[in-house]
Amino acid sequence: MKAETIAIGSELLLGQIANTNAQIISKALQDIGIDVYFHTCVGDNRDRIIEVFSAAIKRSDLIILTGGLGPTIDDLTKETISSYLKIPLEVDQHSLERIKKYFETHRIIMTKNNYKQALMPKNAVSIPNKRGTAPGVLLKYDSKIIVMLPGPPFEMEPMLMDTVIPYLSKLSSEVIHSRVLKFYGLGESKLEEEIEDLLANQTNPTIAPLAKMGEVTLRITAKADSVKKAQDLIEPLEKEILSRIGEYVYGYDNENIEEIVARFLSNNNLTLATAESCTGGLISHKLTNVPGVSKNFERGIISYSNRSKTELLGVKHNTLKKYGAVSEQTALEMAQGLRKLYQCDIGLSITGIAGPGGGTDKKPVGLVYIGYSDSKSDIVKKHIFRGIRKEIKERAANAALHLVFNILKTYR
Amino acid sequence: MKAETIAIGSELLLGQIANTNAQIISKALQDIGIDVYFHTCVGDNRDRIIEVFSAAIKRSDLIILTGGLGPTIDDLTKETISSYLKIPLEVDQHSLERIKKYFETHRIIMTKNNYKQALMPKNAVSIPNKRGTAPGVLLKYDSKIIVMLPGPPFEMEPMLMDTVIPYLSKLSSEVIHSRVLKFYGLGESKLEEEIEDLLANQTNPTIAPLAKMGEVTLRITAKADSVKKAQDLIEPLEKEILSRIGEYVYGYDNENIEEIVARFLSNNNLTLATAESCTGGLISHKLTNVPGVSKNFERGIISYSNRSKTELLGVKHNTLKKYGAVSEQTALEMAQGLRKLYQCDIGLSITGIAGPGGGTDKKPVGLVYIGYSDSKSDIVKKHIFRGIRKEIKERAANAALHLVFNILKTYR
Repeated sequence: MKAETIAIGSELLLGQIANTNAQIISKALQDIGIDVYFHTCVGDNRDRIIEVFSAAIKRSDLIILTGGLGPTIDDLTKETISSYLKIPLEVDQHSLERIKKYFETHRIIMTKNNYKQALMPKNAVSIPNKRGTAPGVLLKYDSKIIVMLPGPPFEMEPMLMDTVIPYLSKLSSEVIHSRVLKFYGLGESKLEEEIEDLLANQTNPTIAPLAKMGEVTLRITAKADSVKKAQDLIEPLEKEILSRIGEYVYGYDNENIEEIVARFLSNNNLTLATAESCTGGLISHKLTNVPGVSKNFERGIISYSNRSKTELLGVKHNTLKKYGAVSEQTALEMAQGLRKLYQCDIGLSITGIAGPGGGTDKKPVGLVYIGYSDSKSDIVKKHIFRGIRKEIKERAANAALHLVFNILKTYR
Repeated sequence: MKAETIAIGSELLLGQIANTNAQIISKALQDIGIDVYFHTCVGDNRDRIIEVFSAAIKRSDLIILTGGLGPTIDDLTKETISSYLKIPLEVDQHSLERIKKYFETHRIIMTKNNYKQALMPKNAVSIPNKRGTAPGVLLKYDSKIIVMLPGPPFEMEPMLMDTVIPYLSKLSSEVIHSRVLKFYGLGESKLEEEIEDLLANQTNPTIAPLAKMGEVTLRITAKADSVKKAQDLIEPLEKEILSRIGEYVYGYDNENIEEIVARFLSNNNLTLATAESCTGGLISHKLTNVPGVSKNFERGIISYSNRSKTELLGVKHNTLKKYGAVSEQTALEMAQGLRKLYQCDIGLSITGIAGPGGGTDKKPVGLVYIGYSDSKSDIVKKHIFRGIRKEIKERAANAALHLVFNILKTYR
């Protein structure tokens, strides 16, 4: 079964937003063995929607459209597709009742333009929307399956996962299973050199490298009759890769470094506190994205000035005067200060120059010191990151979390 | 001139990443009066790249391709396009020297697969890449312009803005100018009802509404001979819109709420400190994304437990015992505590339930109290946000910044 996605919305072509729906849909379809071959974005324009849809219906078996199901005059999807396929639109009473009820529950007045959301192509199945008013459409046309979903990912995603994916899984005879290996501290070119032969000879499983923000992932994907058989195909390949570059692996599949660190802290009953200067709260924001982290993380300090470093962390005036806020010595005293003052097991600190201003020849933009203090060791790591302010903050926050992980894993 | 973008990379079709390049390119082209009509993503596959490119070259005057310029065997863009257009590839000595120099400067060994990055289609212009090894390609073919850029946005964006956009601006006879109005506290349906007639009758300028995470923007776009004439077309329309719903406007064009708050603090010489529980550092992270904010923001507290709320903010034991951590009373004491203990002009606090766990009938997931304290007033605002954990944190952090802005603007 060949699939493609079509995202409809002029805001996409104007560059106001990115087409994240295509990513969400592709990942979900991959997981049930359906390959996606094309993503297209087109504006709220009847002729161009038809141009794109007519190409799609020739080459693909499954077409998932997002966007254009709302109440405004720009919302054209159902009308355009139904008209092109010569299928009439009819009022779906059930959908109309649900829409009315939604407005009542949220105590908003239902404006008349919302009525058109209850129209359905004849014989199509309505996909319930628990987070908005527009129901989706599931339509079979000859041997093709056409799905129409709302544009906002917050509405689209549950409809995809709760209704569309279960429906499609039953149709697919094959299973695709992936195993993702996540690497840190190894560049893309070097990684690919190490597994050059494996990349060149891949058939089933396939190996797809992806580099992003200083990290590289390898996605090993196998097709088989069952998940177990797919895993059996993946296992020897994974073993071979790990035997060559396993020291750089920090996680698998959907894990991110903050989840891994949070889990490590939890499993070992360790508490951690943070003292952030240049990252301004990004490290604690990432950690607190992990549900349940409050067992192991109960405070953080944003010490965005010399004064606050002294008052909240006990960093010595002399240290700041002699070495400066961005220094190995200051990072160390910040991390040690967390432990002394707040009785945590691990103090994690960071101080640096996020840019664009503030850099000098001796201390350039991107210079960052990460401090780590626990009962066994005090460590400071120096980095020079590249990029704009937001990128430097992001790379620095990730490096701090990786430092914690790399130290803690040696303790086992 | 009609433009379209083609992003090449199997990681896009596998759903590993979203096609943010299309967004960046569209925005940049919009700003110089070039309309983008299609975005397509296709995998690292010769036949499908040709399928998409052949459709593009029939309907568009400008085609910008991203991805597939790297050193690996999956990188096929130049080879495929040149072969399709029957243009030979030749070694560009200048590019080869630059690539060699890049590897020397970064002290990385140049692997042999990097040499193919120096190949150029005959008569094409090489676009310098200051953040990576792959140069881009600018090719004229009949009356068409074909641009090939690297996939990573960090490399692609400066090449687009420094070389491609200046080249294209000179070709375009028209100017497009946009004015974006940003609204908070007004729903999309209600906004569109208020300006229904203006939306229905739009020609030049056009009005494009966009709703995202509790905020709505209106983008007013005019085409004219000059920026001044375009602004003259926009002005009366903007005035009319503001006369109807101006009370909900908080910003214009590319401003975000954290920049607006930071500028307000700076212009009024006010210092602000933050005390965050559920948002875990996201508010201070957003504020510290603004260069120069250190003049007005010098510390933040992440008080992720009852104990830290008491120790770092002076919240009374009795208050926590009687009302709980997520309460109007606790939010108030957190904000007041910041001012008492740290002598800032404004204390901004937030406490809530980010989910997925932790909710009860009385205090559901999404319940958030935002506290504000300055010399004139103490205010607490209660919200119930919807969404998953990350969305609740995001909406809550934005609501806190909007609260600060809404209070401060009344002081003028």
